[in-house]
Amino acid sequence: MHKTWGGRFREDTDQRVEEFTESISFDQRLYAQDIAASIAHARMLAKVGLLTADEADAIVQTLEAIRAEIETGRFPFRTKLEDIHTHIEHALIERLGDVGRKLHTGRSRNDQIATDMKLWTREAIDTIGRLVRDTQRALIEAAERNADLILPGYTHLQRAQPVLAAHYFLAYVEKLERDRTRLFDCRKRLDELPLGTAALAGTSLPIDREFVRQQLGFARLAANSLDVSSDRDFLLEFVFALSMIAVHLSGWAEEWILWSTVEFGFLDLPDAFCTGSSIMPHKKNPDVLELIRGKSARVVGDLQRLLVLVKGLPLAYNRDLQEDKQAVFDAFDTVAACLQLAAPLIQAVRFRREAIAQRLDDGFLDATTLMEYLIQLGMPMRSAHEAVGKLVRRCEERRCRLADLPPEEYEAIRPGLSSGVYQIVGVQNALRAFRSLGSTGPEQVAAQLRRWRERLDQDVGI
Amino acid sequence: MHKTWGGRFREDTDQRVEEFTESISFDQRLYAQDIAASIAHARMLAKVGLLTADEADAIVQTLEAIRAEIETGRFPFRTKLEDIHTHIEHALIERLGDVGRKLHTGRSRNDQIATDMKLWTREAIDTIGRLVRDTQRALIEAAERNADLILPGYTHLQRAQPVLAAHYFLAYVEKLERDRTRLFDCRKRLDELPLGTAALAGTSLPIDREFVRQQLGFARLAANSLDVSSDRDFLLEFVFALSMIAVHLSGWAEEWILWSTVEFGFLDLPDAFCTGSSIMPHKKNPDVLELIRGKSARVVGDLQRLLVLVKGLPLAYNRDLQEDKQAVFDAFDTVAACLQLAAPLIQAVRFRREAIAQRLDDGFLDATTLMEYLIQLGMPMRSAHEAVGKLVRRCEERRCRLADLPPEEYEAIRPGLSSGVYQIVGVQNALRAFRSLGSTGPEQVAAQLRRWRERLDQDVGI
Amino acid sequence: MHKTWGGRFREDTDQRVEEFTESISFDQRLYAQDIAASIAHARMLAKVGLLTADEADAIVQTLEAIRAEIETGRFPFRTKLEDIHTHIEHALIERLGDVGRKLHTGRSRNDQIATDMKLWTREAIDTIGRLVRDTQRALIEAAERNADLILPGYTHLQRAQPVLAAHYFLAYVEKLERDRTRLFDCRKRLDELPLGTAALAGTSLPIDREFVRQQLGFARLAANSLDVSSDRDFLLEFVFALSMIAVHLSGWAEEWILWSTVEFGFLDLPDAFCTGSSIMPHKKNPDVLELIRGKSARVVGDLQRLLVLVKGLPLAYNRDLQEDKQAVFDAFDTVAACLQLAAPLIQAVRFRREAIAQRLDDGFLDATTLMEYLIQLGMPMRSAHEAVGKLVRRCEERRCRLADLPPEEYEAIRPGLSSGVYQIVGVQNALRAFRSLGSTGPEQVAAQLRRWRERLDQDVGI
Amino acid sequence: MHKTWGGRFREDTDQRVEEFTESISFDQRLYAQDIAASIAHARMLAKVGLLTADEADAIVQTLEAIRAEIETGRFPFRTKLEDIHTHIEHALIERLGDVGRKLHTGRSRNDQIATDMKLWTREAIDTIGRLVRDTQRALIEAAERNADLILPGYTHLQRAQPVLAAHYFLAYVEKLERDRTRLFDCRKRLDELPLGTAALAGTSLPIDREFVRQQLGFARLAANSLDVSSDRDFLLEFVFALSMIAVHLSGWAEEWILWSTVEFGFLDLPDAFCTGSSIMPHKKNPDVLELIRGKSARVVGDLQRLLVLVKGLPLAYNRDLQEDKQAVFDAFDTVAACLQLAAPLIQAVRFRREAIAQRLDDGFLDATTLMEYLIQLGMPMRSAHEAVGKLVRRCEERRCRLADLPPEEYEAIRPGLSSGVYQIVGVQNALRAFRSLGSTGPEQVAAQLRRWRERLDQDVGI
Repeated sequence: MHKTWGGRFREDTDQRVEEFTESISFDQRLYAQDIAASIAHARMLAKVGLLTADEADAIVQTLEAIRAEIETGRFPFRTKLEDIHTHIEHALIERLGDVGRKLHTGRSRNDQIATDMKLWTREAIDTIGRLVRDTQRALIEAAERNADLILPGYTHLQRAQPVLAAHYFLAYVEKLERDRTRLFDCRKRLDELPLGTAALAGTSLPIDREFVRQQLGFARLAANSLDVSSDRDFLLEFVFALSMIAVHLSGWAEEWILWSTVEFGFLDLPDAFCTGSSIMPHKKNPDVLELIRGKSARVVGDLQRLLVLVKGLPLAYNRDLQEDKQAVFDAFDTVAACLQLAAPLIQAVRFRREAIAQRLDDGFLDATTLMEYLIQLGMPMRSAHEAVGKLVRRCEERRCRLADLPPEEYEAIRPGLSSGVYQIVGVQNALRAFRSLGSTGPEQVAAQLRRWRERLDQDVGI
Repeated sequence: MHKTWGGRFREDTDQRVEEFTESISFDQRLYAQDIAASIAHARMLAKVGLLTADEADAIVQTLEAIRAEIETGRFPFRTKLEDIHTHIEHALIERLGDVGRKLHTGRSRNDQIATDMKLWTREAIDTIGRLVRDTQRALIEAAERNADLILPGYTHLQRAQPVLAAHYFLAYVEKLERDRTRLFDCRKRLDELPLGTAALAGTSLPIDREFVRQQLGFARLAANSLDVSSDRDFLLEFVFALSMIAVHLSGWAEEWILWSTVEFGFLDLPDAFCTGSSIMPHKKNPDVLELIRGKSARVVGDLQRLLVLVKGLPLAYNRDLQEDKQAVFDAFDTVAACLQLAAPLIQAVRFRREAIAQRLDDGFLDATTLMEYLIQLGMPMRSAHEAVGKLVRRCEERRCRLADLPPEEYEAIRPGLSSGVYQIVGVQNALRAFRSLGSTGPEQVAAQLRRWRERLDQDVGI
Repeated sequence: MHKTWGGRFREDTDQRVEEFTESISFDQRLYAQDIAASIAHARMLAKVGLLTADEADAIVQTLEAIRAEIETGRFPFRTKLEDIHTHIEHALIERLGDVGRKLHTGRSRNDQIATDMKLWTREAIDTIGRLVRDTQRALIEAAERNADLILPGYTHLQRAQPVLAAHYFLAYVEKLERDRTRLFDCRKRLDELPLGTAALAGTSLPIDREFVRQQLGFARLAANSLDVSSDRDFLLEFVFALSMIAVHLSGWAEEWILWSTVEFGFLDLPDAFCTGSSIMPHKKNPDVLELIRGKSARVVGDLQRLLVLVKGLPLAYNRDLQEDKQAVFDAFDTVAACLQLAAPLIQAVRFRREAIAQRLDDGFLDATTLMEYLIQLGMPMRSAHEAVGKLVRRCEERRCRLADLPPEEYEAIRPGLSSGVYQIVGVQNALRAFRSLGSTGPEQVAAQLRRWRERLDQDVGI
Repeated sequence: MHKTWGGRFREDTDQRVEEFTESISFDQRLYAQDIAASIAHARMLAKVGLLTADEADAIVQTLEAIRAEIETGRFPFRTKLEDIHTHIEHALIERLGDVGRKLHTGRSRNDQIATDMKLWTREAIDTIGRLVRDTQRALIEAAERNADLILPGYTHLQRAQPVLAAHYFLAYVEKLERDRTRLFDCRKRLDELPLGTAALAGTSLPIDREFVRQQLGFARLAANSLDVSSDRDFLLEFVFALSMIAVHLSGWAEEWILWSTVEFGFLDLPDAFCTGSSIMPHKKNPDVLELIRGKSARVVGDLQRLLVLVKGLPLAYNRDLQEDKQAVFDAFDTVAACLQLAAPLIQAVRFRREAIAQRLDDGFLDATTLMEYLIQLGMPMRSAHEAVGKLVRRCEERRCRLADLPPEEYEAIRPGLSSGVYQIVGVQNALRAFRSLGSTGPEQVAAQLRRWRERLDQDVGI
């Protein structure tokens, strides 16, 4: 009997049921975590006398052999054996007989899978953390490479004010930094050892959870066994953190898809990151960006899957929870893949500086600076706003820029204005005028860039 | 050059990009639809003179050979070749040279994939339709098998009124029937041929879409090429219809999970549909039902994935849309698997008639019928409601049933009441009293059961 | 005692509970449906002898008086009275005493609210259907007004092929037509009278559901009382249909937001549909379009709310279901408001024809037509694709259009090509060349426009 | 002209557009935050010389007067005035003329609303934090009140092992504690002042953001203006944290709904927290619990709304983002209302100790402890599991408990077993046997209870 639970059953499991309930097709991914946790568990059982030292050694060596077989593709996976835990325990028993039958002492698959998933998630968070860092580095480098480039800044996708390209890149660095701290808050919160809480109530055996905690490097022991066996909070929180990264990336992708159009014409995407059309010979499409945008839907869908899954479930473990893993794996794989392409894409992209510069004077990017100049001359803000609004209307009628308006237009607003105003209007002038903390003013941006450069240079590991 | 679009590109695609953008790992599932559509397309090209008859024959024969190779696992799939269309066209060109290079005349992958997915969805709907029918049959048979069984009916999960088990099963038959009509409405709506709308604007070549429509058995031609190349409505609608099935099944599963508890004790689930615990030797768990409940989350997540995907996309095709397929396949596979187990589980389940009967008098299932009796004696409904409410309170104080109250309690409500009331109270009496159309009254239920039995017996095909 | 159910209770409801459980703040919107259903119910009770004719008349007149009071704002709503049903019944009893106490005979709030919501949803569907029609009319008129305007067509947001503006507008007409049929399929499916199925099991009173059905104009009687009291399918289906409209509108809004940018410059949005900035005096923002895009999130969220709500609920009515109404009302109000602005916005918008024409030659919109020309000259499609791909590369190097390439470039592809090719290349030529059914070719578009114009002209009512 | 941005506009806003784009109907809720931020801003403008001290004083006093009017319901809100910012500025200008026109100097509605929402969210987090704490206190008290009560513990909703009621309550205390830390992580992350980043690029005026930061008590200055004007991360994170609370509460509610059934019969819900049926006189329904379960759908829907909203938006502010507030307010109000009822409901509930005790021996809650006893006697775990599984099967055949099996059944498993086994089997024995850290063993639970009691007693403020 290969099931771990056959004793009280009179009938064999229906084969369709085996296929419906199996998880080995996706939880085999957890083999390393499962074996690591089993090794720690075996050592602990020996420590407290539930195994002899020899038994524990035999178990540990066999588990390591199994791990090697899995890693070299020599270990057979079968639907009949339900899940990764059963596969490994089954192989252990085949090889060690009664000694193998002792490993599951004082634990359940409930705390075992919780432990596996926490180990896995800890690593997954570190992986994503590193990839986010790589993307931040690419952004900082792009900011440095394009330090003097002025871009139109948008609100409502209408040209608003000029911004330095470096300021733009730093905005995403900030967003990604919040993403990193969210990941690490999640990591801290999940860093509790579940193992030893057994099925739902703990155990009457004299196990030593503290020993296992140290072996597996958890920060704390989970304090309530009922909580542990029903808890999937850490997976939901992780996938939420991934969703935030995904929607940040989707906004960036949308932006660069726009910037790659004939109409915007800001960017040259490298051929290596584009694909063509099977029918239209001239097409060069920003597929990677489109897929990054589209794949955010997948991560958001995964989060919803998890929320729907846990809604209305009573304590403690319910089999529904088996459905958690594929959502988490999918969200992780998706975000990891997107980040892995984001950094090289940011590195490879080139701005069409000439095309950008040519149209920089479109859209009155300097209007607000002009208004602020009027304020500094003492005009109430609302009046200055109204006055510049009317000047813009005049420009539209004349089809000209603010810098092209004749002095009399400015004099009509305020006598004497025309003497200084031409040093204020114009996009270059406007950009240089910014000075508030956090603004796109050149000094402010340079300071932020230095701050980030230092931070990244000092950054060793996560 | 194996890409279908290399001409204007100077650089090869980055290998990470190939992996990120490939769809062959999941769209190979569409090989049969893709080949069927290509055969129809080739025959049409011959009809209008864009291929010779010999060329078309060569193409058709080679496509059929490729199909046979795929079906016998002899056809190699490679990430480099992007998608199923490219694989098949590439194989065609390898074997037929210039003749193979002609197949893609007058079409694009955009209309090709839309056609493949419509063909696939049509079949998928028929499959789900059949599985829903199977489940309805199982429900009807369960209703017939348990025709005289009385169950407590619930609202708010509190015992409310008695219902016949047959009435209960028929409720799900009705829900599933709505699901079927939703599927078939979706099928009718999607039954339009996309092929021939090419990339987004149609073609200048003299193609004959009507001929292709007949070959592939579509009801209508899609009327607007821009619409076609951006349209994923049919996939969203299909996945919504699947979501409704999934939430219907989740409610049923929840119910049977409850009914299988020690506390309810209504059902014996067959061992073959349960699993045990790795640690707790006495456990027999309703895993299949729990997974059916849990998997509804997956389908709902898939629907959300699709809705997020299409939100805010301009016309026409955007690469984001490639992300549609896995959601649709997952929702279909999930619902199909759940339905495939629902029918045999309904067939195999046995009611614990004795246990149900023993506790049938708990919970005042007859109280409403008593109230209606008072109404028939002329008491205003609200007064009758109040009076019976007080009798129930008396029963709770005395810890007895309505049928156990002494005559004086009834006389206090209305003189003379005690003479007839004992033929009214009691669950059996209460059940027999129902008579409104659609009610759980035995005659009503028998009529509904006959109606459904006839309908299913006459049902040939879908 | 103002509750409808006080008899068996010993304690008054906690006031916080009254506030938490009340629905009158949002279900008062259903007063007209509730009163209409109560009138039909009262007439039926008289017909079967459960009320006298005089009693029924008194009830009907009083209900009509209450309706008038509600409509003129003279009817007080109080949290204590839970819901619209209780308010109306309470007022009835206050005015008619025992006669009022008889109205609730043979019905429950469960079938009453289901009836109210079906009546409301039927009307809501008709309203949305009309608004969709209005939007289609506006699109058709815009198509007619701009019949000769050529726009760049996009895939991947890269310029692909030329399309007629009329073809573009017709694409949305098709999408909206699918939306309408989805609404009407939903309407047909829901057109079953719930009233008379009472709490969950029907009633022992001799009610006449068929009479009520005719009074309220339902197509069929709901056949299973357990199904009715748990069924919210029609609300989910309605909100799904609304979601599809919302995502269609979100795509259109995205497009026009792009088209209103300085960079695209295709559209002039009327001032009356834009707003400005509190700080930037020059801004004119496409707020209405942005909100239409953003509000799709709301409808998708409402659908998700409903799916999560019903997931895992056992039969029959559970109080959770009270949470359905606000989601449905919100989705309806949102989509109705968006449609109400879509039509006038489409009517008011003006294309910047000159600006569009000036840049129409950017982006090689004619490349595919050139390829198809080569195919017609006998070149295999893949070879023609490759050849044109290389010509495009030559143009990019020379910074010219295909029409500007010297004859020798064409001759190098195929001797003799240069004699005819200049009648083929160029966007105007390319546009005129389309001829497949459903394409953007002028004749095809004219035919589609005629078809729709006739259809809308004949459209009386829905 | 009452708009803040009329200067460049030629047409008035369409009235339908005013209604569609207004936010005053829901953002008036932010009046206190808006005024607090405006006061800090005015004081700063005076400090840097953009206002005189007198001007600032006049503005501050008038803002305080406006606040008082709003709080006493004397301030008129009008759709025409768009939003709360415009209302307050408009009133200021009406009363102060040109001085009022100066307040908006160096700021935009973009940074203003971000500041308002951060101030509001900080307070909202503190409110929810307190309510979570109250619920934890109620749980701890319930644990103390029921310290000796043994409940069946469940997995898969099948009886698994005995647990102390106190252990059960503590499980939810742990879950809610994670919720609290998630809230406070969110609070720390959002604690950055946006004000002063203006529309998107900062300002050329000599503002002092640090001064404002201190006035409003923010921990840090937001570092990048483009980031600020596009950032809604904190709202999504807050609503995610609320979603987690909501799904925790939904699981608890599900459980207590089950426990209140006739079948489980564990709980007596107080009348004051239940409602009845309009038709069924005997019903007492757990409406509050059902609504808590159902309302989780609302919060999950709100989260989805926000995720869909921000998906694919380019930098910086887009009007779509106005749609964020209602989702956040709704999620906050919903979770606050659920928590406000959770604590008193937990306080008021009473266990039916007798009914629970009577059936405690059902379901083999002691089987696992028996297995662990065999392990301690040296039997390999898997063999012990198998052996106990068979004993359970024997019990089912005999319809008895493990404690009722005759000695020979135990002797057959292992000679001598029957001497000690009867001190092991039986639910009371089994419960006492647990000893692992975090288990339901009485000493472990007592220790946890002490830990929490101390923690809550020391808890001052949040």
